[in-house]
Amino acid sequence: MVKTSKIVQEIYKIASGSREKLLPTRLSQLFLPANTNLLDTKAQIEGNCKSQRILQTQGIVIPAGPGTFHLLPLASKAMNKLIDIVDKEMKKIGGQKIFMPCLTTGDLWKTSERWVNIGAELFKLKDRQDRDICLGPTHEEAVTSLVSSLPNLSYKQLPLKLYQITAKFRDEMRPRFGLLRAREFYMKDMYSFDISEEEAQSTYAEVCEAYDRIFKQLCLHVVKVQGLTGNIGGKYSHEYHVLSEIGEDQLQLCTSCDFRTNVELQETISVCPMCKSHMKKSQGIEVGHAFYLGSVYSEAFNAQYINKKGKPELLQMCCYGLGITRLMSASIEALSSKDKLQWPLKLAPYLVCVILPKAGSKEEKSCLFGEHVAMALADFPGLADNVVIDDRTQLTIGRRILDCASLGFPYLVVVGKQSVEALPKIEIHDVYNDKVHVLTHAETMDFFRENCAS
Amino acid sequence: MVKTSKIVQEIYKIASGSREKLLPTRLSQLFLPANTNLLDTKAQIEGNCKSQRILQTQGIVIPAGPGTFHLLPLASKAMNKLIDIVDKEMKKIGGQKIFMPCLTTGDLWKTSERWVNIGAELFKLKDRQDRDICLGPTHEEAVTSLVSSLPNLSYKQLPLKLYQITAKFRDEMRPRFGLLRAREFYMKDMYSFDISEEEAQSTYAEVCEAYDRIFKQLCLHVVKVQGLTGNIGGKYSHEYHVLSEIGEDQLQLCTSCDFRTNVELQETISVCPMCKSHMKKSQGIEVGHAFYLGSVYSEAFNAQYINKKGKPELLQMCCYGLGITRLMSASIEALSSKDKLQWPLKLAPYLVCVILPKAGSKEEKSCLFGEHVAMALADFPGLADNVVIDDRTQLTIGRRILDCASLGFPYLVVVGKQSVEALPKIEIHDVYNDKVHVLTHAETMDFFRENCAS
Repeated sequence: MVKTSKIVQEIYKIASGSREKLLPTRLSQLFLPANTNLLDTKAQIEGNCKSQRILQTQGIVIPAGPGTFHLLPLASKAMNKLIDIVDKEMKKIGGQKIFMPCLTTGDLWKTSERWVNIGAELFKLKDRQDRDICLGPTHEEAVTSLVSSLPNLSYKQLPLKLYQITAKFRDEMRPRFGLLRAREFYMKDMYSFDISEEEAQSTYAEVCEAYDRIFKQLCLHVVKVQGLTGNIGGKYSHEYHVLSEIGEDQLQLCTSCDFRTNVELQETISVCPMCKSHMKKSQGIEVGHAFYLGSVYSEAFNAQYINKKGKPELLQMCCYGLGITRLMSASIEALSSKDKLQWPLKLAPYLVCVILPKAGSKEEKSCLFGEHVAMALADFPGLADNVVIDDRTQLTIGRRILDCASLGFPYLVVVGKQSVEALPKIEIHDVYNDKVHVLTHAETMDFFRENCAS
Repeated sequence: MVKTSKIVQEIYKIASGSREKLLPTRLSQLFLPANTNLLDTKAQIEGNCKSQRILQTQGIVIPAGPGTFHLLPLASKAMNKLIDIVDKEMKKIGGQKIFMPCLTTGDLWKTSERWVNIGAELFKLKDRQDRDICLGPTHEEAVTSLVSSLPNLSYKQLPLKLYQITAKFRDEMRPRFGLLRAREFYMKDMYSFDISEEEAQSTYAEVCEAYDRIFKQLCLHVVKVQGLTGNIGGKYSHEYHVLSEIGEDQLQLCTSCDFRTNVELQETISVCPMCKSHMKKSQGIEVGHAFYLGSVYSEAFNAQYINKKGKPELLQMCCYGLGITRLMSASIEALSSKDKLQWPLKLAPYLVCVILPKAGSKEEKSCLFGEHVAMALADFPGLADNVVIDDRTQLTIGRRILDCASLGFPYLVVVGKQSVEALPKIEIHDVYNDKVHVLTHAETMDFFRENCAS
């Protein structure tokens, strides 16, 4: 049980009618090691990468080693929200969630020839029997070998769309920008298996549409460009980029049509080959990548299905990566100002922070009123587990408003001076839209019913 | 979109009033590679381990390499349900969820001296800079080093209870029994930090109570025994065991009091040292382990907090493991019969399977009625995403009832011969309780309202 006075606990119990109900989180107890002497290591935090600087100084993400990070409670909550969004969209297109091991036998990678081709980025190790193992950066080999082991896969079961959301590993030459180029990161990787090129292209389009819906929910401007297939291979690919100065990819974007490309793929051009308009350059953070693989892997692993005529035929494959931790970081990079964290609203770890009055102030007696407001809000279906109480009452309200705004809470509910008036009022700070509303209790409830209904 | 006739899709749209609604899963499209020639590899499936034999022959879990497994859709759904249960119980006791990387720097393990002490079970590798790394089997080093990096951790913020649910790695000498002794597995590991031994003991008791609540929800008989602290270290520990013939631990249980111990800890005794009653022997599968660590790790990493007097003091630690994949497998081992899968009800991947009439039969015209029933059930809050439709209408109903029962669906809703009577009836097979009810549509809804309300 988080630390709360007995009285407040009793009130919660009675009002909520259930002992099972969880109390809203209290900021003083939240593991958020901000403002510690980690700030002394600020020099180590790459100066140009706003998202990582904010995440580290706020104590949301902490380095664990070269290119590896601890995701602390706020990051963990945001990640789970993103995973929920991705799961729903993958399910909508018939995606089936699985978990494949991180440890992959070296033999599989030798079959696809990536054991050598992928280079030093592949983390390799030996087990106690001296067998080669690697830590999966992606799972084309694993999933294709899995599917190829099923002798009676019928055309009726296709398309098959298998995906997972797991830790991935890449021994980056220069890990940097925190979660943007880490050696261990979370990725959603989906693999589709189709009966023909035409069907595979249709599945490819369907997954790309799901990606568009995910980015839309994150209110993130993401551009889709032709990409380089690189060591994954296949016929063609598309990358998804969040435009940003710190992006490591150089993009060329047509100023009037949809022609967009990565300079890796196409040398610098000033005129669009499609519509002859002017091309502009931009930098992008790659957050997703879809590959039309065709039969590259299904040939290597002899992955077949039984067609309508009862004959075995090679499967047509595509794969689709979506950086989970990278997307979190890239969205903060795109939305935040210099020192003020802003999440996509759907990823904000807590939507509402209720700021209680300062201890010893004349409005201190409104403290219980504040607890009540917090509890009432936490009862809204859309706000369950989304309310945090700023109980650091030794600090002034003003100081806490600034602090909580920079911490990225979208809505602050301030129980301050006006809470002790005849008709008590509450200040609602709509932080992301830079607006303040002064509302009664009933109006406050209406406000959140409208803004955080689901 | 899963494959469904246009008409059925239209009906769903109209009836559900929303295009966003997900259709119930169709069994023909579920990736469940049962009854394939994987059965030919039955010899490879350890004969004595019922749970693994069932999981593999049903296509729910498939070996990926020595001691590693692919968790296919049903296993992945069950795992997510278990994670939800664990998350809720950990949150109730103030647990805060984080993610620590699997890759841990060798230096941390050298500090604790486990780099050598833990032996060949620790997966070790080198990065491209030739630095030592290991894959975390547990995270005492990582979390203690994290907490020790916070110079101003105040007594007011304690107890701190940090936990994660992630893949763990152990290079087992003899991986066996599938998920029960794998080289890569999912574990919940919590670490608590307290100001004193007394407080740490109280936290320890609190976490043990949360474990009891988890096992109770799984309807699993789990015994708590004194354990050996082994290479984790600390003052004392308690293990949680599911009693089973295939358990690898030898337990001694008093026949009248609560004295229980692992033979690793105490040589064979015939009389209880507490109450002098007779001791009996049993074998157990360890599914959880709580350690009172004291200051073993906080000393090694100089992890301190600031006490009331403003002075730094060593933290008192405990740690608590709970095998996620192992608990899934152990519960199947305990509940299932020879060939018939039974999950704890709260882990069942789908609660209801609606069996549609056979193609070409005279009750075939009830097919849409069956679809309606499935959709109505999927609308119950407690059944969202818990309904699957057996649309393999080329098979007889009898064959599919047997098949679906052995697949572990707790409730079968059979739309068969009686569905074409004047007052259509539905057969409800309560598989786990071995009962059959013949009900009208309205009664069917009432049945599930009562049995699967939440």
